[in-house]
Amino acid sequence: MRAAFLAIGDEIVGGLTVDTNSGFIAGELRAVGVEPIAGFSVRDTEDEIIRAFRQALGEAELVVSTGGLGPTSDDLTMECVAKLAGRPMVLHQPSLDWIEERFRMRGMEMPPNNVKQAMFPEGAEIIPNPNGTAPGCICPIDVDGQTRHVACFPGVPRETRHMVAATLVPWVAARQTGRRFLSRTFSTVGVAESKLDEMLAGAIRPDEARVAFRASFPRMYVRVTVDGAEGDDLEGRMDELEARVRERLGAAIYAVGDEGLEETVGRLLRERGLTLALAESCTGGRIGDRITDVPGSSAYFLLGTATYSNEAKAGILGVSEQTLATYGAVSTQTAEEMAAGARRIAGADVGLSTTGIAGPGGGTEEKPVGTVCIGLAWEGGSWSRRYDLGGREREWIKATTAQLALDRLRRWLLEQE
Amino acid sequence: MRAAFLAIGDEIVGGLTVDTNSGFIAGELRAVGVEPIAGFSVRDTEDEIIRAFRQALGEAELVVSTGGLGPTSDDLTMECVAKLAGRPMVLHQPSLDWIEERFRMRGMEMPPNNVKQAMFPEGAEIIPNPNGTAPGCICPIDVDGQTRHVACFPGVPRETRHMVAATLVPWVAARQTGRRFLSRTFSTVGVAESKLDEMLAGAIRPDEARVAFRASFPRMYVRVTVDGAEGDDLEGRMDELEARVRERLGAAIYAVGDEGLEETVGRLLRERGLTLALAESCTGGRIGDRITDVPGSSAYFLLGTATYSNEAKAGILGVSEQTLATYGAVSTQTAEEMAAGARRIAGADVGLSTTGIAGPGGGTEEKPVGTVCIGLAWEGGSWSRRYDLGGREREWIKATTAQLALDRLRRWLLEQE
Repeated sequence: MRAAFLAIGDEIVGGLTVDTNSGFIAGELRAVGVEPIAGFSVRDTEDEIIRAFRQALGEAELVVSTGGLGPTSDDLTMECVAKLAGRPMVLHQPSLDWIEERFRMRGMEMPPNNVKQAMFPEGAEIIPNPNGTAPGCICPIDVDGQTRHVACFPGVPRETRHMVAATLVPWVAARQTGRRFLSRTFSTVGVAESKLDEMLAGAIRPDEARVAFRASFPRMYVRVTVDGAEGDDLEGRMDELEARVRERLGAAIYAVGDEGLEETVGRLLRERGLTLALAESCTGGRIGDRITDVPGSSAYFLLGTATYSNEAKAGILGVSEQTLATYGAVSTQTAEEMAAGARRIAGADVGLSTTGIAGPGGGTEEKPVGTVCIGLAWEGGSWSRRYDLGGREREWIKATTAQLALDRLRRWLLEQE
Repeated sequence: MRAAFLAIGDEIVGGLTVDTNSGFIAGELRAVGVEPIAGFSVRDTEDEIIRAFRQALGEAELVVSTGGLGPTSDDLTMECVAKLAGRPMVLHQPSLDWIEERFRMRGMEMPPNNVKQAMFPEGAEIIPNPNGTAPGCICPIDVDGQTRHVACFPGVPRETRHMVAATLVPWVAARQTGRRFLSRTFSTVGVAESKLDEMLAGAIRPDEARVAFRASFPRMYVRVTVDGAEGDDLEGRMDELEARVRERLGAAIYAVGDEGLEETVGRLLRERGLTLALAESCTGGRIGDRITDVPGSSAYFLLGTATYSNEAKAGILGVSEQTLATYGAVSTQTAEEMAAGARRIAGADVGLSTTGIAGPGGGTEEKPVGTVCIGLAWEGGSWSRRYDLGGREREWIKATTAQLALDRLRRWLLEQE
């Protein structure tokens, strides 16, 4: 099945909003064997929308649109699809009830305009939207005697992502000539995309599964997709493939599924009943920010410090003046004392530290921009290492240092009971 | 002038990369009076690229493409444009010299493939790329006896943004029937987009200037664009419009130009010779992270703390046990003592604090999720306030709290000498 994508809205064509929906949906559909072939973006004008739908339907069996489902007069998607299908618009009472209920929950009365959001082309399959007032639909369209389909979703990415995963993907998978699809995503850390590709080379034959890489800096994923006939043991085959992937990538895989390292680390801390304190210098609070992005992190995160000055490193964390004078603020020695100090003053089980030169200023011959040290301290032990992240921008150095530090903490946690 | 946009690449259609170039260029061109009318994305296939160019040229006087300028065999943009123009490809020696020089600078020899990146359709105007090996071009195309234009840029956003601002925008502005354009952007904080629109209503007539709003959470911009004939005093008119905008928006404007609040705050701290310490609870390090995103922030940022536990608030910052017991960790009293404590232990001039319930757990009847307190402490004074940011997600609450706290610090700094 070929699919084309249509992003509808003046704000998209005019550059006020970036269309992330089309790409997201394309990725989801590729995982169930669909071939994405083209994308269009058009303004909120009936003529232009209908023209783009016609063109897309001429090329693809499935056209997925996003946007134009709001309650106002410039939201035209459903009317355009009804015209293309040659069917009238009809009220879908369950959708209207749902929209009214949403307004009631917020103590408001539904404005009459919103009735429009419960109107769909006759014969369309309605897609509920648990996160908003705009349901979507899948509508059959006759194109030169062939039945093709248009699927319409709202423009709000959070709403659309949920709806696509819950309805469109299974709908497509069921139509893929009776084949079933199963994907598994592995979140990885510490290995570049080209290197991942190299490490996995030959592990999985193209006829066994599709392997795809997706980077969302500093995150990096490997996704494996298998397909088979109804009744095939896809889970069993996937487990066998996972074993091969793990043999090649080892501890570079930190989670099955798409999750942040801060979630993995949080889960490990919680499972082991351990608490954490941070001493950040060059990351400035980035690690604490990520750790506390996880709901419930107060159970294991006791203290973060961003000791940017030498005075703070000495006065607050107790890094010795001699260490600072002898080895400098950016040194493995200072990193270890910072981690130990944060751990001690917070009464935490483990302390994690970063110190480095994020640039663009502050570099020297001996310690150029990108020189970074990471430290770890625990009851009875400590660890540190110097990294060279040179030649990159401040933001990249901060983000990479935070990722390396969280990974180091993860690897240490894996070694604990 | 109408413009259409063409993003070229399998990775874009397939959803592995999001096309941010088209929207960015559309926004830049709108500022010089261009009307963006449609967008296309196509795969790296000669037929599909030529077909999309043809369609776009049928609708718009200017078609801007991004991508497909690399050295490999699947990079086809220039060949396709040459076919559309009916002209041969010719070598542009200065571009070849530049590409060879870039390789030499890195101690490498240029692979023969890269010669391709110095080949352009005959008669095209070359656009240098100071940040990469792929120059762009502007090429005239005859469409039914009319001369239209295709402008080609690389897919790497950083390279393309620079090239567009430096060449395409002035090129277009010069062709806009002799008119000149001037834009000024105002970065604002603390006011929603719809409210900004309301506050500015009637301040500027549509025939005086175009006013546009752009949100990039938590940032919010207002952009004013004027145009006039050669010799008109656009700067003078803009200054007069700026006075009117400032009269309506007042201190909600924190900077002229597109900058983060952390940059503004950093500049104010530096100008006043003041130093900062942070006591973050619900923001967990977000503010320290943002403050240290600014190069040179070590000159005024002494210490960040993320005191997530009550023990850390008391033990490290010296918040009194009685305050915590009487008013709770999320209270204006605790916020003020946190700010004062951070300031004291760091020896800083000003202390800034956040404490709140970011959720989804931890809320109570009296202090529901979204209850946030911000505190500020300085020599001889302090300030605090409670905010209700209820009904939103953890990430939104963290980001908004950080923004409100930085804004409070900014407003205090503005009152200092």
